Amino acid sequence: MPIDEIRVTYRLETSGDIEALAAKIAADQSTGTFTELPGETAEVQARCAARVVAISDLPDATVPSIPDPGGAGPYHRAEAVIAYPLEAVGTDLAALMTITVGGVYAVRGLSGIRVMDIDLPEAWSCHPGPQFGISGSRRLTGVDRGPIIASIIKPSLGLLPDETAEVVRQLCEAGVDFIKDDEKLMSPGYSSLEHRVDAIMPVIKDHEQKTGKRVMYAFGISSADPDVMMKNHDLVAEAGGNAAVININSIGYGGMSFLRKRSQLCLHAHRNGWDILTRHPGLGMEFRAYQKIWRLLGVDQFQINGVRAKYWEPDDSFVRSFHDLATPIFSDADRPLPVVCSGQWGGQAVETYRRTGRTLDLMYLGGGGIHGHPMGAAAGVRAIRQAWKAAEMDVELADYAKEHPELSAALLKWG
Amino acid sequence: MPIDEIRVTYRLETSGDIEALAAKIAADQSTGTFTELPGETAEVQARCAARVVAISDLPDATVPSIPDPGGAGPYHRAEAVIAYPLEAVGTDLAALMTITVGGVYAVRGLSGIRVMDIDLPEAWSCHPGPQFGISGSRRLTGVDRGPIIASIIKPSLGLLPDETAEVVRQLCEAGVDFIKDDEKLMSPGYSSLEHRVDAIMPVIKDHEQKTGKRVMYAFGISSADPDVMMKNHDLVAEAGGNAAVININSIGYGGMSFLRKRSQLCLHAHRNGWDILTRHPGLGMEFRAYQKIWRLLGVDQFQINGVRAKYWEPDDSFVRSFHDLATPIFSDADRPLPVVCSGQWGGQAVETYRRTGRTLDLMYLGGGGIHGHPMGAAAGVRAIRQAWKAAEMDVELADYAKEHPELSAALLKWG
Repeated sequence: MPIDEIRVTYRLETSGDIEALAAKIAADQSTGTFTELPGETAEVQARCAARVVAISDLPDATVPSIPDPGGAGPYHRAEAVIAYPLEAVGTDLAALMTITVGGVYAVRGLSGIRVMDIDLPEAWSCHPGPQFGISGSRRLTGVDRGPIIASIIKPSLGLLPDETAEVVRQLCEAGVDFIKDDEKLMSPGYSSLEHRVDAIMPVIKDHEQKTGKRVMYAFGISSADPDVMMKNHDLVAEAGGNAAVININSIGYGGMSFLRKRSQLCLHAHRNGWDILTRHPGLGMEFRAYQKIWRLLGVDQFQINGVRAKYWEPDDSFVRSFHDLATPIFSDADRPLPVVCSGQWGGQAVETYRRTGRTLDLMYLGGGGIHGHPMGAAAGVRAIRQAWKAAEMDVELADYAKEHPELSAALLKWG
Repeated sequence: MPIDEIRVTYRLETSGDIEALAAKIAADQSTGTFTELPGETAEVQARCAARVVAISDLPDATVPSIPDPGGAGPYHRAEAVIAYPLEAVGTDLAALMTITVGGVYAVRGLSGIRVMDIDLPEAWSCHPGPQFGISGSRRLTGVDRGPIIASIIKPSLGLLPDETAEVVRQLCEAGVDFIKDDEKLMSPGYSSLEHRVDAIMPVIKDHEQKTGKRVMYAFGISSADPDVMMKNHDLVAEAGGNAAVININSIGYGGMSFLRKRSQLCLHAHRNGWDILTRHPGLGMEFRAYQKIWRLLGVDQFQINGVRAKYWEPDDSFVRSFHDLATPIFSDADRPLPVVCSGQWGGQAVETYRRTGRTLDLMYLGGGGIHGHPMGAAAGVRAIRQAWKAAEMDVELADYAKEHPELSAALLKWG
């Protein structure tokens, strides 16, 4: 990887010429426009011109990713790598996104475009990255080994602060390591963050007094206004809280950057809104590229769905995401804790373990899978811990369940 | 429009049952999850449950918007309106986007989803909206009537600050009302914002001294870090500048919100990155919904392409965007100045005028169309003013060009 270039890999699709399309993108996104200009000298080009460094053909498609009324296939496809001079982009994320991603999506003559990866030179290690990451999450939860077992308040919306605190008490007693607000809960009238902190933190502290175990609670502090978000952050920190849920797309790069510089909290990222950028395989962006941006900005824990999630995402995509998060950008410290979630109840533990490199460095988050367990929430947590023990021992779940009634009951309900 | 609800219109597509899909979205995005919960009481539902208020069928599609391997059509389509209680969402944009947009994109079982519109109740008028908008843009440029004629520095990247200042001088002398940095230019090593401000502002002031005309220059101040962006803002304001280009998607809601509260500058929004959300007609978001968010956040001038733009966007889409911006959300003051741009050289003026309600309340931005005019930049500006005069007089361009050599030369080159 050259030290003075940013390399972006695009999956391109066009009924025209793929090489011409790649060249057009490189020109449009640096020094060119729709007509020749007297000022586009060799000197200007040398300083800032992007260039196509590789093109790998993919099989043609018969159906275009974006409808092409009046047009005709075949639609040629390729992966093209374009190198942008670091001198033209610098190290600001707004510049990176505008130059190498933003404008590219608008180019005429393509029927599909997907940003597959962004390779950044060492100069980009100037970004803060996670403050806590994997080791900090373990330290704050006191879970030295094994998955951090987590749950979420359900129902997701509508509970009053006192009712929420009661659910927190039940989950603490059920033995979870981590609890979070639903990502949709921030600070609505019926359950303002202030009232929620007042109601919940005494429960967390009381549980710690009694048992010695400090459960990590992540409060929903997101706001589109960074000043409000910092006020929310401070509310949590002053009450002794140590974590927050942030809706990264809803606060944007600016919100995240502002928060990270001032944050004392472990930042648990929810990526709602992301799906529209990745769900069509010929359009948008691959998680591999997206997650790098948010890791550099400082996400500590990153939700990435799981095996047999309740959402649209296929298992293979989740597995790739897990490996992406586990791959250092510049160093091990920039790896966030992967949060395996969505429709999880333990039944997916063995397969998750086998497919993600047999690591236990993860958070495993059950919502309905804990609250809805037929023997109650404590049994739900035990079932999940049993499932992970089976995974670690390389035992099939059905076998392990024979001696473990909670896992057995979960299998009976959801298996 | 009820005062206690937010209504979002979605275009849905599924090979399953459309009504069931709409109901699932309403449940998932408020109080439900994948399994029944003891806590989801009638009280909780009354407080926060979203509900489907209307479904209008659209013709079936045979090709799904998102590939559906192994599935089979027909793909049913409809527009569904879902009402979310204001109590559950509040007035924070992060909550709005997470609850009504973000999670919806992840719902299983759909082959297409597009957010068509977001109707906000009066409580949302708490957002600042544009500080300058149409009237402020006219006041600052001194253009009381007619389109504000604008240009952009070309080549877009690669010029040194002194070279840029020389282009600014030429454009001032050519008679433009407004000049902007290319959106891709923020503060790279070879042309830092500080050096650019130092080089350009004396040219603007000198021109004002000589001619009495103050040309508005919009500097690229975007940064993913709001602290850096504010420093950039202050650099411009302290040097006597009055405008800035902001890449709204690259700074995010947080960046925009932070800037607007502190800004003394007229904020010229470039929406690069937006295209991927709107280019596929079955996916993403309609500009009608998107532009409301950014107007509430405070955009003063909004780039929306133009007739026969150099990018992919069809003319009809541009015309709809123009009308969207011209429609008040809560009052006339929340209307930004529409910026008609991309491949513009005057040849599109008559059609633009006829199709956008015969208004002259717009900025008309020529880049290559001014710099690349065969008789020079001043002639390029004159050609554009002539084209708009023809539009206003309801004369065909070719006829008007007979007596106007600059317009005639432009027609010959680009017509």
